[in-house]
Amino acid sequence: MADASLSPEYRRDPVTGRWVIFAPERSLRPLALSHSKPHARWDAERDTCPFCEGHETDTPRELFAERDPGSKPDGPGWRLRVVPNRFPAVRPTATANAAASRDGLFELAPGVGVHELVIECPRHTSSPTGLTDAEFAAVFRAYRDRITALSADPRFAYVTVFKNVGAEAGASLAHLHSQVVATPFVPEAIRGELDGAADYHRREGRCVFCDIARQESEAGVRVMAETPHFLAVAAFAGRFAYETWVLPKAHASRYETITDPHAAELARLTKSVLGKLDGVLGHPAYNYYLHTAPARSGELPHYHWHLEVVPRTARPAGFEWGSGCFINAVLPEVAAAELRAAEPPPDDDIFGP
Amino acid sequence: MADASLSPEYRRDPVTGRWVIFAPERSLRPLALSHSKPHARWDAERDTCPFCEGHETDTPRELFAERDPGSKPDGPGWRLRVVPNRFPAVRPTATANAAASRDGLFELAPGVGVHELVIECPRHTSSPTGLTDAEFAAVFRAYRDRITALSADPRFAYVTVFKNVGAEAGASLAHLHSQVVATPFVPEAIRGELDGAADYHRREGRCVFCDIARQESEAGVRVMAETPHFLAVAAFAGRFAYETWVLPKAHASRYETITDPHAAELARLTKSVLGKLDGVLGHPAYNYYLHTAPARSGELPHYHWHLEVVPRTARPAGFEWGSGCFINAVLPEVAAAELRAAEPPPDDDIFGP
Repeated sequence: MADASLSPEYRRDPVTGRWVIFAPERSLRPLALSHSKPHARWDAERDTCPFCEGHETDTPRELFAERDPGSKPDGPGWRLRVVPNRFPAVRPTATANAAASRDGLFELAPGVGVHELVIECPRHTSSPTGLTDAEFAAVFRAYRDRITALSADPRFAYVTVFKNVGAEAGASLAHLHSQVVATPFVPEAIRGELDGAADYHRREGRCVFCDIARQESEAGVRVMAETPHFLAVAAFAGRFAYETWVLPKAHASRYETITDPHAAELARLTKSVLGKLDGVLGHPAYNYYLHTAPARSGELPHYHWHLEVVPRTARPAGFEWGSGCFINAVLPEVAAAELRAAEPPPDDDIFGP
Repeated sequence: MADASLSPEYRRDPVTGRWVIFAPERSLRPLALSHSKPHARWDAERDTCPFCEGHETDTPRELFAERDPGSKPDGPGWRLRVVPNRFPAVRPTATANAAASRDGLFELAPGVGVHELVIECPRHTSSPTGLTDAEFAAVFRAYRDRITALSADPRFAYVTVFKNVGAEAGASLAHLHSQVVATPFVPEAIRGELDGAADYHRREGRCVFCDIARQESEAGVRVMAETPHFLAVAAFAGRFAYETWVLPKAHASRYETITDPHAAELARLTKSVLGKLDGVLGHPAYNYYLHTAPARSGELPHYHWHLEVVPRTARPAGFEWGSGCFINAVLPEVAAAELRAAEPPPDDDIFGP
């Protein structure tokens, strides 16, 4: 083949051991990398949006809020609210349909859990880059505080925090919000990371994420942006084109230990990364989620919390669902170079009021 | 809650141990279960379709074909063709970009592999239910023959066979085709099943899939259709609404051992299942894929090949990508009852000529 940079290669995720196929040539294929279109402004919902200020009674009662002095719960005057999801995937009061929790081969359990929403600002805005730095910092503090609160409940083994931006990424309401789900088990993806990280620590005596941060920082080729305490890198073996990991440079297994100033620094870096993705990919739909240690696990020497940003640049198809192996058409070194050079688009608040 | 049948529950996949959240209440949520729209007819591409009879020179040279006597390779007169993918994810001749296969933490390898297409009929048809029974049987024989051929190559550890129907499911060309990918490693999802099945066999002394087939057959509630040698069931802990597994009733770890008559029987059952899904979900986009034993593994006492059909009924979002845990809004007992009762829609060849 003439262009060796287009030759496919396999890369192995250093944490989980999962192989990913990098197939740069696939980006030449018809319809490939049809970056999802910018999410609609959904202006139509503006009048009926349950998350806008003044519509507080359209949500279940708030569990937490950052409020102006003198304002009342479930009334206006807030900057951020946390409320139960009206359409929860899991419920604190779930009861099993079946009396028994095992039917021969099959094991089931009541869907006991908590599903909360973090409403990130009082305005009808749908792009995270439309938040002020102060608002984004409050979001990262709210994640910490909800993980802390829910981790104290002995029924729950893990708290998942995630965000969907754009319909293609699963968002069903435009107004900026994140989601928090507490479950009685540690989910599959976290177990995979914990197992891989524990193996690495036994073998090497170090945290694999600390090693990644150090090696990436030295090499630089996959670094997209950094601040004194955090690093944003294009994942070496990311499942998705432009997949980006944001991780603290110093070891920390539990997101809950983040300080207010570090939450603000993380928010600034994340906002910059999202702005760059908007610039390079044209306001793509994306998800981000936190990976942190299980509830009540204490500080773990082998694990290291981080944030993963996954743009919806391609639809997983039969190969991915069937094999669990992903095909990524953009090498992370290429993605990082593009993103390093990118500026947020001037219209980065096109989704705002 | 008034209606216990809407209470969420956790179910554990008996093979892999993976938990899935069943949240029937989520189907009441705005935008939930927005079944993907029927895939377009793509009539516009009819004149230029590289897979139609008469356009054989628009594909790479055929590797295999079922042909009329006297017809010539890469000319008309065929019923099914297998050709290399023009835009392959992996290549027999791949070379690594990096000289070394390891860079500190990071491991990479040349993307050596094979990526083939099975063109399933000479007509411009996009729905598998538009195939005749004889054509569908030929497709299942072709899967067997390509797995056999590629498994003989010592470079490859696994052969993945899959199919994408509809753009939402990743299809980029309308004309019916399946894909075959040979890789030097056993992909993640198969490793997970092999490990889980081996654990079960050590513990119970039996194949977990044989036990599933027996228990499902006796209980009946999740059975959707069956033939003398095959069973179609709604997966007990499927990741996707209406996820269906088709498995042989008798133990067989390697799909390659299927006989011609059994391939025809499997094709009839699968076509019936796909027709029922079309009827219930309105021609959804979907994927199906084979799970079979690794190349050259010999007959395994603990593993059991099967076909999984996964309709694209909901978009995985931040929760699924972040946690690896899926939320399914339709209980398999409900899905099975609907599908048992369903007839294929009368217009099930609306995608055909």
